[in-house]
Amino acid sequence: MKRVEVLRRLAFEKRGFDGFLIVNEANLLYFTGFPGATCLLIPKAGESTIYVYGTNYEQAKAEGRGFNVELVKRGEKLMEKIAAQVKDFKIKKLAVDMLSFENYRNLAKGLRGETKLKAQNKLVWELRKVKDEKELELVRKAGELTSEGMKVAFEAVKPGVREYDVAAEIEYAMRRKGSWGTAFETIVASGVRSAFPHGGCTERKIQKGDLVVVDIGAAYQCYRSDMTRTIVAGKPSAKQKKICEIVRLAQEKAFQAVKPKARARDIDAVARKVIEDAGYGEYFVHGLGHGVGLEIHEPPTLSQESKDGLRTGNVVTIEPGIYIVGFGGIRIEDTVLVRRRKAEKFTKGPYALEAEW
Amino acid sequence: MKRVEVLRRLAFEKRGFDGFLIVNEANLLYFTGFPGATCLLIPKAGESTIYVYGTNYEQAKAEGRGFNVELVKRGEKLMEKIAAQVKDFKIKKLAVDMLSFENYRNLAKGLRGETKLKAQNKLVWELRKVKDEKELELVRKAGELTSEGMKVAFEAVKPGVREYDVAAEIEYAMRRKGSWGTAFETIVASGVRSAFPHGGCTERKIQKGDLVVVDIGAAYQCYRSDMTRTIVAGKPSAKQKKICEIVRLAQEKAFQAVKPKARARDIDAVARKVIEDAGYGEYFVHGLGHGVGLEIHEPPTLSQESKDGLRTGNVVTIEPGIYIVGFGGIRIEDTVLVRRRKAEKFTKGPYALEAEW
Repeated sequence: MKRVEVLRRLAFEKRGFDGFLIVNEANLLYFTGFPGATCLLIPKAGESTIYVYGTNYEQAKAEGRGFNVELVKRGEKLMEKIAAQVKDFKIKKLAVDMLSFENYRNLAKGLRGETKLKAQNKLVWELRKVKDEKELELVRKAGELTSEGMKVAFEAVKPGVREYDVAAEIEYAMRRKGSWGTAFETIVASGVRSAFPHGGCTERKIQKGDLVVVDIGAAYQCYRSDMTRTIVAGKPSAKQKKICEIVRLAQEKAFQAVKPKARARDIDAVARKVIEDAGYGEYFVHGLGHGVGLEIHEPPTLSQESKDGLRTGNVVTIEPGIYIVGFGGIRIEDTVLVRRRKAEKFTKGPYALEAEW
Repeated sequence: MKRVEVLRRLAFEKRGFDGFLIVNEANLLYFTGFPGATCLLIPKAGESTIYVYGTNYEQAKAEGRGFNVELVKRGEKLMEKIAAQVKDFKIKKLAVDMLSFENYRNLAKGLRGETKLKAQNKLVWELRKVKDEKELELVRKAGELTSEGMKVAFEAVKPGVREYDVAAEIEYAMRRKGSWGTAFETIVASGVRSAFPHGGCTERKIQKGDLVVVDIGAAYQCYRSDMTRTIVAGKPSAKQKKICEIVRLAQEKAFQAVKPKARARDIDAVARKVIEDAGYGEYFVHGLGHGVGLEIHEPPTLSQESKDGLRTGNVVTIEPGIYIVGFGGIRIEDTVLVRRRKAEKFTKGPYALEAEW
């Protein structure tokens, strides 16, 4: 409810809206703490209402604390129902977080031009980008679980083992330690496939000397974390070691540069310069990182084009990589909290291609 | 490429479009077979083009067979780029599968009224609803893996064990047998939480006598499967057994009724009648089932409001349930293929609350 109050202040007092409609799943979770809401209507004058279908009605009544719960009955059209409620509340300027083109049209039709409708998802991101204490506790825990999974990855990667068997061991370990699931589809991309940043996880058998990019995340409650290490199945070659060291240095320097008020693009530039100076600039084919929280990819974005600035309470990944088709790929990634003094790593583990824990 | 040809025939020859823009992730996977495309433009006169960002460019060139691959460069605006290409192809009537309100506006702006834009996602669903042989092979395999997971669930559910530890054992078993991941977030909802259809999976310790709803799915390649059994931690009570038998009978009768040309709402009605006749109608709080394929919830929908008809090649779930707050919930679900003679179950396992395998 405190989060709803912050949104009210931002949207109603500072921007002149008198209603806010939330439909995005992660936003709903953020504001209601309940995973089964279909939408949430926050009127300036009146009680905030969660709309749920029959499937989740009993759960909403039990868990949707502090909100009025409205059942969307069989045959009722959701956008029509919302429009009627908006009229009842006499809302004249309604902010919405996100709507499909179809829902937008249906809602606008129901409102018959009597209420202005405006997309304001950026406003919600202003809130969600800065994690509160409760959120940080959950992301930190997710990071710990992820680090436990990575420990197992270093043990499981061996010649002859299939990519998905490595994933099995990692996910099992994370679950046993208390993970609520994976934050995204586990990546164990070996050999030629390691050169693809989103190489997935297949039935391929790992070969001796392969680079294996392991990109994993545990979820804790609904919060996520993200971590990558690259492991060699066997003894790393001189070239593998050399490139790993460049990526490691890029990651370390970028991490050192993370601080409140820094521009996200400048952090990207720090890592990119290390890789460019080493002569591998063209092989760093993606941005440096992204926000992490209820979703695995959130603002702020750390890339060359980013216009984001960093703030205390942002949680972001720092994940430079070098991908060379034919040779393979190396990526190193941690989930990091932006703080006043030094940034804090939520994921922890050695950076070498073979590791002693 | 065969699927693109079918879409061409439906959209261009039968409906007069001369271009189709695909942006939905699952649709992209369906048409390209490649998991990293950002969008796909199919012109009536010209080569179909996959648009990818730098991160996935090398992988697209290696795996996006039969398509032209276009790199979206740094700083390029995707919808502007698409608009320019639409003009080059002289497309006058462009179908799109799905667009956010924002992308719709940006695309329309880029097209400057010279091309008509029309949402045609239903057309894509007409194709995706009917699975081809290759798809059926993958969903069947996902069903086998899911059944293996359920076998383990019956062994793992015991008093004192945490919900997420049961999930750990299930997911590990599915992975070890070859699963590519979970089809959705595993549900292990015990005791009071079993009365919530989407009760999730928490750190709660299962108590003796608890009903435990286990709703799981393995993914194989990118295809999914869905299965629920309800297990009692200990010896089932007479009331638990009685309600389980009602749900089982509802599921069995609905399964028997599944055939091509049946109306989806009629299948729902078969199951609902069994539960209503037994006096539990008000506790069956959701529809009977949904399609399964690349996504876990797809058309056709089996519910009281559904306007869908069933066709050979549809894959759907049959999942009646009875949920009584304070007592708990029982749901039984299989993933089923609609076929000419008898429907085929892709998920298999006993229906009793305690099982001998």
